[in-house]
Amino acid sequence: MTTREMLDASPTAVPFGVAEVAAAVDACLDCAQACFSDADADLAEPDVVEMRTCIALCLNCADVCDVTARVLSRPYQWDQFAVDHLLRACVRVCTTCAEECARHADHHRHCAVSEQACRACIRACSALLDAEALEELQKLGGV
Amino acid sequence: MTTREMLDASPTAVPFGVAEVAAAVDACLDCAQACFSDADADLAEPDVVEMRTCIALCLNCADVCDVTARVLSRPYQWDQFAVDHLLRACVRVCTTCAEECARHADHHRHCAVSEQACRACIRACSALLDAEALEELQKLGGV
Amino acid sequence: MTTREMLDASPTAVPFGVAEVAAAVDACLDCAQACFSDADADLAEPDVVEMRTCIALCLNCADVCDVTARVLSRPYQWDQFAVDHLLRACVRVCTTCAEECARHADHHRHCAVSEQACRACIRACSALLDAEALEELQKLGGV
Amino acid sequence: MTTREMLDASPTAVPFGVAEVAAAVDACLDCAQACFSDADADLAEPDVVEMRTCIALCLNCADVCDVTARVLSRPYQWDQFAVDHLLRACVRVCTTCAEECARHADHHRHCAVSEQACRACIRACSALLDAEALEELQKLGGV
Repeated sequence: MTTREMLDASPTAVPFGVAEVAAAVDACLDCAQACFSDADADLAEPDVVEMRTCIALCLNCADVCDVTARVLSRPYQWDQFAVDHLLRACVRVCTTCAEECARHADHHRHCAVSEQACRACIRACSALLDAEALEELQKLGGV
Repeated sequence: MTTREMLDASPTAVPFGVAEVAAAVDACLDCAQACFSDADADLAEPDVVEMRTCIALCLNCADVCDVTARVLSRPYQWDQFAVDHLLRACVRVCTTCAEECARHADHHRHCAVSEQACRACIRACSALLDAEALEELQKLGGV
Repeated sequence: MTTREMLDASPTAVPFGVAEVAAAVDACLDCAQACFSDADADLAEPDVVEMRTCIALCLNCADVCDVTARVLSRPYQWDQFAVDHLLRACVRVCTTCAEECARHADHHRHCAVSEQACRACIRACSALLDAEALEELQKLGGV
Repeated sequence: MTTREMLDASPTAVPFGVAEVAAAVDACLDCAQACFSDADADLAEPDVVEMRTCIALCLNCADVCDVTARVLSRPYQWDQFAVDHLLRACVRVCTTCAEECARHADHHRHCAVSEQACRACIRACSALLDAEALEELQKLGGV
C-alpha cells in the first residue's frame, strides 16, 4: 500500500502521527476486503444457515471500514469529532464481526483470516483513539 | 424511493419506528447525491479557490451519508452502538457541510440545494437520535 | 430526490439530456437501497438456503448501482467510455438480480419490491445507452 | 493484504487464476486509496486552479476502483460479463487519471505516487482482461 507515501506527500499534516493514521487506513482497507470476501465465502458454504449472522456482520463491517479509510485519507478539513465517532463505530463493528468469525474459525479458514483482519483493524483504530485521548489529557493538564 | 416498502417487508423489525428509519435512509441518500454533485459543480466554478473547503466537506459528507444509509437499511443484526456513532458522525459532517454550503448559497445555486439536502439529513438523523435517547430515558425511568 | 435540481444547477451540462441522467441516478440509488435491504431481509428468512444466490446478486447489484449513481452525478470531466461500460455493467447486474428476485417474489414481498427497483433501474440506464447510441448513429450519418 | 488468503480459502474458485484476481483486488484498493488522498492533497495546494481536472478524475477513479475490488472479491455468483465491463471502466478511469497526475508529478509528489498506483492498477486489471480474452480464444479454437 502507498498510503503512508500519500499522507507524507500531502500539503496537510495529519494529526496524531502519520504512521498511526496510515496504519489505520491500511488496516481498514484490508479488513473491508476480508469481510467482503468472507460474506461471499460464507454464502457458498453448506452450513449457510449457521453463517447468516456472520454474513450480516461482515457486510456492515466492510462498509464502515471502507468509509473510515476514506475519511482518514483526507487530512485537509480533518474533523476530529467525526473521525472519533467513525473510529468508535469501526472498532465496534470489527469487534462484533471478529467475535462471530471466531466461532467459525476452526471449520472455515476464511473466517479465521477475516477474524485476524478485524482484530488488526481494532488495534490500529484503537491506537488512534488512544493517541487522541492522550492529547486531550495533555491539554487538560495544561502542559 | 422504495425504502419504506423494503423495511416494512423485512422479516426483522427496525427499532425506533420504521417511518423514522426509512426517512433517515432516504435523507442520507439524497444528501449523498447532492454532495457528490456539489463537489463536482464546485470544481467547475471560476471561483474554485474559494470553493475548496466546500469540496472537501462535501466529499466526507457524501461518503458518511452513504454508509449511514447502508447500515440503517439492515435491521437484521442491528447494532445500536454502531448506529448511534454513525448517526452522530453523519449529523456532524452534514452540519459542517451545510454551514459551508450556506456561505456560497447566494452565488451558487448548487450550494443552496446541497445545503437544504444536508439540513434535511440532519433533521432525519437527529430524529433517530432523539427517539433512541427517549427510549433510554424510559428504560431508566423503570416504566 | 434533489438530483435533477443539482444537475440543472451545475456549471457543466450533462450529455444526453439532464432529465434522463437524473432519472438514472435516482433509479440507481433506489435500486442500491432496495438491494442492500433485500440482502439483509433474505438473510433473516427461514429459507435462507434458497436465498443465497439472491443475496450474492443483490450485493453486487447494490455496489454497482451505487458507483454508477456517483459517476453519473459528476458531469465535469464526464468520460463517455467509462460511463458506457458502467451502464452496461449496471444493466447486467440489475437484470440477473431482477430475475433471481422474481423467483422469490411470490413468497417474499421484499424480493418483489427489489425486483421492481431493479427493473426501473434497467429502464433508466438503458434509456441512457439508447440516447448514446442514437447520438453515435447521427454522427455516423454525417448530419 | 490478506486478499490472496481470503480467495484461496473460499469454497468457490475464482476464474482466470487466483493470483491474478488477488493482485487486481489489491491494486484496485491501493489505487482507490491513492486517489482519495490525491484529491484531498490537490485541494490543499496553492495551484488548486490547475488541479481541478486531476481532482475530478481522482474521484471517479477511486470510486470505480473501489467497486471493482468489491466485485472481484466475490467469486460466488461471479458474472463474467459484468466483471469484464467493470474492468474496462476501471482501466479507462485509471488511464485518464494517470495521464493527468503525470502532468503534475514533477511539482506534486502526491500526484507522482498516485500516478504509479493508477499504472499498477491498469497492469493488474489488463492482465485479467488478457487472461479472459485468451480463454475465449481457446474456446473458439475448439481445444
